[in-house]
Amino acid sequence: MDDPVLLTGSEGRVGSAILGDLGSKYDWRLLDREPPTEEPSHEFFVADITDYDAVREAAEGAGAIVHLAGDPRPEAPWNSVLGNNIDGTHTILQVAADVGVERFVFASSNHAVGAYETEERTPDLYRDHDEFRLDGSELPRPSNLYGVSKAAGEILGRYYHDEFDISVACVRIGNLTEGHPPKDYERGQAMWLSYRDCAHLFDRCLAAEYGYEIVYGISDNDRKYYSIERAREVLGYDPQDNSAHHD
Amino acid sequence: MDDPVLLTGSEGRVGSAILGDLGSKYDWRLLDREPPTEEPSHEFFVADITDYDAVREAAEGAGAIVHLAGDPRPEAPWNSVLGNNIDGTHTILQVAADVGVERFVFASSNHAVGAYETEERTPDLYRDHDEFRLDGSELPRPSNLYGVSKAAGEILGRYYHDEFDISVACVRIGNLTEGHPPKDYERGQAMWLSYRDCAHLFDRCLAAEYGYEIVYGISDNDRKYYSIERAREVLGYDPQDNSAHHD
Repeated sequence: MDDPVLLTGSEGRVGSAILGDLGSKYDWRLLDREPPTEEPSHEFFVADITDYDAVREAAEGAGAIVHLAGDPRPEAPWNSVLGNNIDGTHTILQVAADVGVERFVFASSNHAVGAYETEERTPDLYRDHDEFRLDGSELPRPSNLYGVSKAAGEILGRYYHDEFDISVACVRIGNLTEGHPPKDYERGQAMWLSYRDCAHLFDRCLAAEYGYEIVYGISDNDRKYYSIERAREVLGYDPQDNSAHHD
Repeated sequence: MDDPVLLTGSEGRVGSAILGDLGSKYDWRLLDREPPTEEPSHEFFVADITDYDAVREAAEGAGAIVHLAGDPRPEAPWNSVLGNNIDGTHTILQVAADVGVERFVFASSNHAVGAYETEERTPDLYRDHDEFRLDGSELPRPSNLYGVSKAAGEILGRYYHDEFDISVACVRIGNLTEGHPPKDYERGQAMWLSYRDCAHLFDRCLAAEYGYEIVYGISDNDRKYYSIERAREVLGYDPQDNSAHHD
């Protein structure tokens, strides 16, 4: 990807992980609702993600968009996720179609399928021996309205792929933390995504050939209930970390 | 269902089909955005579906809700489906949870999966010999933003089922017309739903036992690419019409 890549929500945690490892690999344009707290490393646009004109200005000439912007709180109220996440994702996808972006990488979430973690399945679900896997072909089953908004974003991506032939990858991000999750936090260990594996996965989403994909974004944890096989096969994802390997 | 049943969007086409056959079978409360054009047969509430307080007043004491309200146009613009269909469906589901409604029947649409009708598959898809079937377990693939909004409504229903234990049935309605579709309209024949089969299907959704279901709402057409097996098995749907049987 030689063309500029627009990164929305660049000031958040996922943006930090991506820019930490890939800051010099792409010609980034950063976009966030608030001005940067430090001198930005790349061209920076301050815009609300639902402001079509402002977002379009940032996207003109971009070859790809990595869309992270949105209310990241699992407990976010409906009005916030309706506007920031659902309407915001529609806005940036419409911009992508209008300016001719080739690929679109969407930060979806484990909360889009959080209600598969039923009382019957847990805590076995979080343990090595358990063979239950979600692989991205299952219907969404959100655990909160934030998860509803992420599942809606995936469906918007499906529509814009089918209608405008944009390559769309939806990454259901697990639990992104810089350090290993606590040893006694079983769920966190099962869905851990290290910063470097996160950056690598988004790198692959910007390089691989695909049409429309839903993949899980976790490290290669011994404990897991998300399959990373699709990410390996289609994207060439090759994670280096495992929550079981504590220093 | 002895308790009142709230029917939103009662003045539309689906409402006509339901009330035509089931008008005296349930203790209906009707709700629509506009006042009725004729003297209503049942208690009538005029309310916008996104007005929580007004909708709640209509739903107090109801045992079930049949939710048809929304912008029904396949070409409806985003702002309309975002408000009327997505926000509206959230409003009525939250009302359902807050007043303790036991079951919720949602008028979804064939447009939630319209993009499965690819150039490669059509027109064979519409013909008797073709064995491709959608059965409700597949991921949504909308053909327009209206279809996106209906798929989002299904996911909202999934969340309210999981979180509040409301029985939720999503009916992906085909092509509801009073008379048979024209003989040369292959797609219309494949997805035809007669008025009486429509009323019968919603009747079954109000009577059968289930948790969360996505079913297709078409008559027993010779031509079909939607499976009605799930509706038969779980709901006891037994359609009487077939688009191939012209008078």
